Amino acid sequence: MTAVTVTFTDADGKESQAQAKPGITVMNVARDIGVDILATCGERGRCRTCRVKTLKGDVPPATIMDGVQLGPDEVNEGFRLACQTEVIADCHYLLAPPKSESGHQLLSAERDPDAGGILLDSGVEKRLVKANEPVEEDEQTTDTEEILMALGEDAVIPLELAARLPGVLRAKSGNVTVTTFCGEVLDVEAGDTTEHCYGMAFDIGTTSVVGSLLDLATGEQLAQVGNVNPQAVFGGDLMSRIAFAQFNLPNLKKLRARIISAINGHIKEACEEAGVDAAQIYKLVIVGNTCMHHIFLGIDPTYVGLAPYAPVVREPLVLTPKEALLKAVPNARICMLPIVAGFVGADATAAVLATRLDESEGIRIMVDIGTNGEMVMAANGELVACSAPAGPALEGAQIRHGMRGAVGAVEKVEIDDDVSCGVIGDAPAMGICGSGLIDAIAKMLSAKVLDDSGRLNFKNKDDLPKTLADRLIEDDGRQFVLAWADQSGKGENVSLTQQDVRQLQLAKGAILAGVMMLMSVNDISDDDVDELLLAGAFGNFINKESAVHMRLLPEFPLEKITYVGNAAALGAQMALLSETERTRAADLAKRIRHVSLGMHPEFQGIFVDAMSFTAEQGAIVRAAVGNL
Amino acid sequence: MTAVTVTFTDADGKESQAQAKPGITVMNVARDIGVDILATCGERGRCRTCRVKTLKGDVPPATIMDGVQLGPDEVNEGFRLACQTEVIADCHYLLAPPKSESGHQLLSAERDPDAGGILLDSGVEKRLVKANEPVEEDEQTTDTEEILMALGEDAVIPLELAARLPGVLRAKSGNVTVTTFCGEVLDVEAGDTTEHCYGMAFDIGTTSVVGSLLDLATGEQLAQVGNVNPQAVFGGDLMSRIAFAQFNLPNLKKLRARIISAINGHIKEACEEAGVDAAQIYKLVIVGNTCMHHIFLGIDPTYVGLAPYAPVVREPLVLTPKEALLKAVPNARICMLPIVAGFVGADATAAVLATRLDESEGIRIMVDIGTNGEMVMAANGELVACSAPAGPALEGAQIRHGMRGAVGAVEKVEIDDDVSCGVIGDAPAMGICGSGLIDAIAKMLSAKVLDDSGRLNFKNKDDLPKTLADRLIEDDGRQFVLAWADQSGKGENVSLTQQDVRQLQLAKGAILAGVMMLMSVNDISDDDVDELLLAGAFGNFINKESAVHMRLLPEFPLEKITYVGNAAALGAQMALLSETERTRAADLAKRIRHVSLGMHPEFQGIFVDAMSFTAEQGAIVRAAVGNL
Repeated sequence: MTAVTVTFTDADGKESQAQAKPGITVMNVARDIGVDILATCGERGRCRTCRVKTLKGDVPPATIMDGVQLGPDEVNEGFRLACQTEVIADCHYLLAPPKSESGHQLLSAERDPDAGGILLDSGVEKRLVKANEPVEEDEQTTDTEEILMALGEDAVIPLELAARLPGVLRAKSGNVTVTTFCGEVLDVEAGDTTEHCYGMAFDIGTTSVVGSLLDLATGEQLAQVGNVNPQAVFGGDLMSRIAFAQFNLPNLKKLRARIISAINGHIKEACEEAGVDAAQIYKLVIVGNTCMHHIFLGIDPTYVGLAPYAPVVREPLVLTPKEALLKAVPNARICMLPIVAGFVGADATAAVLATRLDESEGIRIMVDIGTNGEMVMAANGELVACSAPAGPALEGAQIRHGMRGAVGAVEKVEIDDDVSCGVIGDAPAMGICGSGLIDAIAKMLSAKVLDDSGRLNFKNKDDLPKTLADRLIEDDGRQFVLAWADQSGKGENVSLTQQDVRQLQLAKGAILAGVMMLMSVNDISDDDVDELLLAGAFGNFINKESAVHMRLLPEFPLEKITYVGNAAALGAQMALLSETERTRAADLAKRIRHVSLGMHPEFQGIFVDAMSFTAEQGAIVRAAVGNL
Repeated sequence: MTAVTVTFTDADGKESQAQAKPGITVMNVARDIGVDILATCGERGRCRTCRVKTLKGDVPPATIMDGVQLGPDEVNEGFRLACQTEVIADCHYLLAPPKSESGHQLLSAERDPDAGGILLDSGVEKRLVKANEPVEEDEQTTDTEEILMALGEDAVIPLELAARLPGVLRAKSGNVTVTTFCGEVLDVEAGDTTEHCYGMAFDIGTTSVVGSLLDLATGEQLAQVGNVNPQAVFGGDLMSRIAFAQFNLPNLKKLRARIISAINGHIKEACEEAGVDAAQIYKLVIVGNTCMHHIFLGIDPTYVGLAPYAPVVREPLVLTPKEALLKAVPNARICMLPIVAGFVGADATAAVLATRLDESEGIRIMVDIGTNGEMVMAANGELVACSAPAGPALEGAQIRHGMRGAVGAVEKVEIDDDVSCGVIGDAPAMGICGSGLIDAIAKMLSAKVLDDSGRLNFKNKDDLPKTLADRLIEDDGRQFVLAWADQSGKGENVSLTQQDVRQLQLAKGAILAGVMMLMSVNDISDDDVDELLLAGAFGNFINKESAVHMRLLPEFPLEKITYVGNAAALGAQMALLSETERTRAADLAKRIRHVSLGMHPEFQGIFVDAMSFTAEQGAIVRAAVGNL
């Protein structure tokens, strides 16, 4: 990938500059050029000494430790932990910004959330108690009663634990560690194990699954795991996944088995990586869209795929490992964050939680671009959401040379007299990934290779520079060649076909229509919007300028558009570390009003408008369908 | 078996008499001799029209329907339902006793327990509701919410049900039957299934398992099942069962698997017999001694077998089918009645519940004679219990010719100048069962074949009638022949050896010592005791006179000794039909004070006393051990 420029200004105003590959932490970029940043905790995100403030450039998405250490206010002001933050684009940081001097504060579980930071109240408690063996004096007692007496609380020891209590009670002379989640006893271990208290957060996406293993006492991230969603072999997008399971219980079971086995595998992998005993994972928070949520729980998603697209359940759930079939975490409780509606899932709830959209003043819109696009708008405290079925084209699926963002993928396109492609890994071009597609369309529009209606400009080929005109060819359909066969790793042209452009038009039209609908039903104009947040893995890789230019997003000033990273995963981690946050998620899901696109009379007009590449062209077709 | 004489007195004072085989219902005995008893409900125990009152003879143990229809007061006064009651011995009944005229009352679920009868409040409710499919108007709803709205209650639909809710909701145009237990949703079925509401009660004994399938709405018994406890292959008595599993998890799993598979099998069997769908069994109540209880739940019983013999758990439990591994009843809750102490189990709690021992005035002692004898005394409202490890000798195990109470077993012994044996099925004698053993010892003592210390009277053989003296032989040890080889089905003598007598002495000594201990610690003399209740399968087959004569029981007047049937099983059925009763069981278990025999300084003296066959002999040996 192309190197980026990182500039540092120290407390004395002195500037230094470094070239760095995207993905390296700010801490390491600084160290490489001899700029020292203090890291008291050893780069583990457990203190605030390495904090920097973003002066210019895109503020990198906040990690869970940014949230824990710095709190929402500082995170919003652009403060980040240098040891946790990866550089993504050209940027300029202020080292040791003033607030760190006064506001320095060591992390503790009692931390006041009002003073910044996420309250570390995971709900999981481990307590070492000294229990007696039952004796028979006047009245007989039981093993269970002796433990509860030592605990001094009115709790219930579940059957599974009772079954092995006699051994545990007697193994270390009555020293036992009792673990509870919200007062419910999860495990009783021999000896003192209070130091080991872990949890995991998972975001189950249609395309990929990501998980983090966190220390619940400190908030520290111990491992990160993830892979493609193994259900993909049964259908790439949501609707094909639903169709596969619709009225077909055995297929539902197949889908469920795949995701459950993946999650169990990810848990083991994370535990091995971090040297953690999975029996000491006590809480899981899982988010995902409604379909992934239902399939994961074995709930028939048939009617999620049929109008009115109602979920079967949407309230927050807390499940046992047996209910969730998660053998890998025998002592955990599995918390499913709540769903809003059929196509506004628990991932949207988590993203709202992480971005604190509900707490914003003014008008902010969060967009998660994916196979199914989800948009949530906060307008003066009101939360409104809708979803748009974009399909997988924006991610490169159903595109002739589309591919994942891996080595060999065109991720950046420049067009002046000719085309030059940025390829991941500086390798020969093998295909084009999502960010490349958006860039390509935007640049093709600018170069007039593509006209405003989305037609490849064969008609006015002669007005183009010859090098560009030569790239408009017919070969199994009309197409524009981005990289010629001899520069291509596959030995064939990498091009965008007319058909590809139409697919992308449909996809981006759906996303834009969703945003426009939210604005329309709330009577909000472009100028009213204070910020547009790009959430989700996809959103963080696209070029904002290109996205606006090809009208995937409304024509907002670029500085109003912010990358917020995988906000759903971050929200899941917040709910993992904090019951306060998990409770907020439940409240949020209830507060978010859902607007159904299909049901809305204005929708058809807005959709044809949104498919166009320019607002002018959009207005014309919208008028043509009689809907202004 | 020997026929018994049944006498009826009708409302006009007219008497009729019948000879009947034990085990036939009073209703059928009457019918056979042309005496009409009205049975409005068709002999199903669902009305009170057939009630009779016991005038003379042993009152037969009450069935669950006696309790439901007549209530504890009438049951205690000797009223019984003729259609439910089996004759067990000579008896005299009053037909259509006066109370039936005034007190006639049809069974209904709202029945007031104060007016007699068990309140039919099983806690299971089935309600037909009409639910809408989710619609999308302004706000989207879910399948779950539509059901709960129709139910009009604040309930939770568990994950497993939610998973198949979409189909159920749409199968019968939204007509669904929601089943709850104590407010918890157990099942949601398409259409109206409110008529089908069943439960089962199980008594898991060391030797045998019995179960009843009941209609929870009417209390009617639909099937009865049972068999030997299949764990027996791993040890006949409690301690050998515990020893097998002690510090040995695989063996515990083997024992657990056997009982669980048996219970699952019994459930299926009962359902087939009654034509009931096991998915419509919603409540199970299970009782058993502490060891059976723990093994059934997979709880390590190691320390139940070691001093101070503490149970691991004793409180009442309500489990899911998954927790209890009872696949046969996927929609039920499994209620374990509470335990008192290591050797005073949930069966004892249930027996106290069934006999309403706690409500008695005066002093009543309930004795359950078994491999482990349990005794509970109610003395002016106080409940005290103890247990006595009798071993299996009284049931014929570890006795040379011991056998179960099956065809060919000597069950009755008469001795005058010679011996005559009553044999089950009037077959040649093959062995001797428990009731026969007690009878044999008692009669051998009277005939002086056995002296008071328990020695076979070889010394004074010459003083005996020749026919008896001839039966005292030496053949692989000293023995007394009850049935000669030529009358024996096996072609060998059926006899009691000196070793057998010693075994029986130890066993009966343990039982009697238990009763004497309870009386001793509460300073109660024989005369103070108002009633001794014989509970358990074994107790109902023994001859009271012989039991007193051989000093298995204290020397109470015979009319103070009452058979109460399998009170543990009856208590389980009561708790099944009534949450009021299940709550009472929980209270009872807490109220029963446990006295540990072994810990008590007086025990050794009492035990050697109790082993003797006469009080005089007992007093002598007790004095000899220096403990009077």
